Amino acid sequence: GKLPFCAMGVSSVIHPKNPHVPTMHFNYRYFEIEEADGTKQWWFGGGTDLTPTYLNEEDAIHFHKTLKEACDKHDLKLYPKYKKWCDDYFYIKHRGERRGIGGIFFDDMDSPSKEEVFQFVKSCAKAVVPCYIPIVKKHCHDSFTPEEKLWQQLRRGRYVEFNLVYDRGTKFGLLTPGSRIESILMSLPLTARWEYMHNPPESSKEAEILEVLRNPKDWVH
Amino acid sequence: GKLPFCAMGVSSVIHPKNPHVPTMHFNYRYFEIEEADGTKQWWFGGGTDLTPTYLNEEDAIHFHKTLKEACDKHDLKLYPKYKKWCDDYFYIKHRGERRGIGGIFFDDMDSPSKEEVFQFVKSCAKAVVPCYIPIVKKHCHDSFTPEEKLWQQLRRGRYVEFNLVYDRGTKFGLLTPGSRIESILMSLPLTARWEYMHNPPESSKEAEILEVLRNPKDWVH
Repeated sequence: GKLPFCAMGVSSVIHPKNPHVPTMHFNYRYFEIEEADGTKQWWFGGGTDLTPTYLNEEDAIHFHKTLKEACDKHDLKLYPKYKKWCDDYFYIKHRGERRGIGGIFFDDMDSPSKEEVFQFVKSCAKAVVPCYIPIVKKHCHDSFTPEEKLWQQLRRGRYVEFNLVYDRGTKFGLLTPGSRIESILMSLPLTARWEYMHNPPESSKEAEILEVLRNPKDWVH
Repeated sequence: GKLPFCAMGVSSVIHPKNPHVPTMHFNYRYFEIEEADGTKQWWFGGGTDLTPTYLNEEDAIHFHKTLKEACDKHDLKLYPKYKKWCDDYFYIKHRGERRGIGGIFFDDMDSPSKEEVFQFVKSCAKAVVPCYIPIVKKHCHDSFTPEEKLWQQLRRGRYVEFNLVYDRGTKFGLLTPGSRIESILMSLPLTARWEYMHNPPESSKEAEILEVLRNPKDWVH
């Protein structure tokens, strides 16, 4: 039978050329469905997450702290819960790695009230620019080596693996007849790379980011 | 409960640097399982398929004709059936395109007898070199432009999409606990590219290959 619904959202992914500027993704969305008996269900979902090529602890702390402050204004329980949800969601199971250093992620949020959840989602959306743009400004003129660009490209390969194999939005979109493929796959990077058995040497900068992708850290306590 | 089984296979993917040399993939495999009542089931599967960046009709005909001859020695019904199976299998549904110009693909082959199926699979495997290497030799010194290399990279993006979203071997492998990820993902190209709303101009060489990926051709009749 028919299921009247209404869905809206805004998504953005930025894959910078410079390997010292991290990739950032955010999505905020609202759903409304009318059930067979006429009752209406609604919920919000969304999140903001960061995918650096190299770890910069100061940036990671700034990013998470800015998101935490946006959450804390509404409820102190939100940031810890949505930070963990983000680490769990962006997990590339076959690699044993997360896609990036996380941020916040939530879905099915329908309490305490529509107005209060909307205020929360607006706080999160307003935090996108202050959590990310200072990092861009700080690093966009950093010089980089061909080896650093190559590592960025390998990390972009992992980004593609997550999005095509695990991301619910992408999988749902690809399976929906008549969906707009170019919109769904705009999350993919311009270029990506795969190398057989690529393993960065111990104690390298490449191994440092892998370590936090394998074992997510608490950045704000 | 336990399910005693035995599986073996050989796979290879070649992604040449030169966009005038097509990508080639083959896989031949044998499975044996013992059911709860002690009866043994066995079957062969496999295939060989070609993914050109640009269409060369002479090469496409040579490739399919060589595979057809290998099949025809065993049963005239095999090539038409397995050619169609290949076109159906390597379908990137969300793009409405096949991964390449096909070849042969089959699975669950368990008749007329184990010895006869094995002879057939050996004929297919022996056809890999003669169906592909003459194409490599013909084009490996062709010069190419940056625009041709770029189109190759966009096609490699589609190859990644097929393998990560649809390929049964890859999906099965990624979901198997303890599987060897580097072996499963060695089918991915070294590099790939995605561009938003990339549409080659009508009557271009790029549009020519897209046409046969959207509407598979009969190359040998």
